[in-house]
Amino acid sequence: MERLINRIRKEAYVIDNRIVKVDHFINHMLDTELVFEIGKEFSDKFPNATKILTIETSGIAFAVGTAFHLDNIPIVFAKKCPSLITDDNVYSSQIYSFTKQIESTVTVSKGFLTSKDKVLIIDDFLAMGSALNGLISIAEQSGAEIIGVGVVIEKGFQGGRKNIKNKEVVIYSLANIIDIKNNIPIFK
Amino acid sequence: MERLINRIRKEAYVIDNRIVKVDHFINHMLDTELVFEIGKEFSDKFPNATKILTIETSGIAFAVGTAFHLDNIPIVFAKKCPSLITDDNVYSSQIYSFTKQIESTVTVSKGFLTSKDKVLIIDDFLAMGSALNGLISIAEQSGAEIIGVGVVIEKGFQGGRKNIKNKEVVIYSLANIIDIKNNIPIFK
Repeated sequence: MERLINRIRKEAYVIDNRIVKVDHFINHMLDTELVFEIGKEFSDKFPNATKILTIETSGIAFAVGTAFHLDNIPIVFAKKCPSLITDDNVYSSQIYSFTKQIESTVTVSKGFLTSKDKVLIIDDFLAMGSALNGLISIAEQSGAEIIGVGVVIEKGFQGGRKNIKNKEVVIYSLANIIDIKNNIPIFK
Repeated sequence: MERLINRIRKEAYVIDNRIVKVDHFINHMLDTELVFEIGKEFSDKFPNATKILTIETSGIAFAVGTAFHLDNIPIVFAKKCPSLITDDNVYSSQIYSFTKQIESTVTVSKGFLTSKDKVLIIDDFLAMGSALNGLISIAEQSGAEIIGVGVVIEKGFQGGRKNIKNKEVVIYSLANIIDIKNNIPIFK
């Protein structure tokens, strides 16, 4: 997505050839117009979705922007809890944040995702792939059909895509940073 | 807001005359159409806002739905951290969750909220008022003008409105539950 890539090129603040800070338009302040343009891209790619699955926090806005372009299909956001929970009423999965160096449990209430759903998974970043594996696992537990995954920014240089266990799932990222040199991101 | 009130009347699951569960359309699964209708109500009430301030997690979707109807003004969402932080680059405030019985710090990067902003604060619930006091405090620290507060569901029976320290701020809630009897909510 040209506009997103240009925006990252011009405005992202890169630290240590590794951290790409875009919190003034992606994950702390939001450029609302861009949110809906991103949603349009995802909706064009996956027009057959009947439900969106995302994860708190930063995926939610893009899920809304996408659902808007898909006749306002419902959104479910997985919740993060610090501790392992055993609850028969939820699908759950363990994920690990390499940024925060914490493990957490993500859950979705069983009633909100079923085998009748055609699920589009949305997230802001694909880094090491742990969160995405968690979301895919939750969708699999529910028996839902996974239509695909929409990622706003893929940090391809971290290789998360190859860590995704389910090799059938189509992952569509709008900006894929495959390398960073002298703190300048290089896109695929 | 008639449609929201009817929805709560028909579908909310009330426990112990106190807990109002609406997580199948407000704070776990989202009815996207309702999200945009709620946004329309807030935008009609506060048309002069130039920025929306909300708090992760459940406020974000309603912030997007509102910004959409206000020419896509930017959104800032305050972040919650478990511990007290001292960082000169952020506005911060302590809040207490009576539901989770934990104190946390909410922060906003200083660059994202300034005295030039006319801020509309959006949140999903007003219960005891702690989160809202935190958001108002952050807006005050930034010098921004607070245009008003939009709350999706006010739990009026918990009296949070009278706990709000800044008495000048206009608080507009779309459904105000002033009492619960036999697990049936009574609206103002």
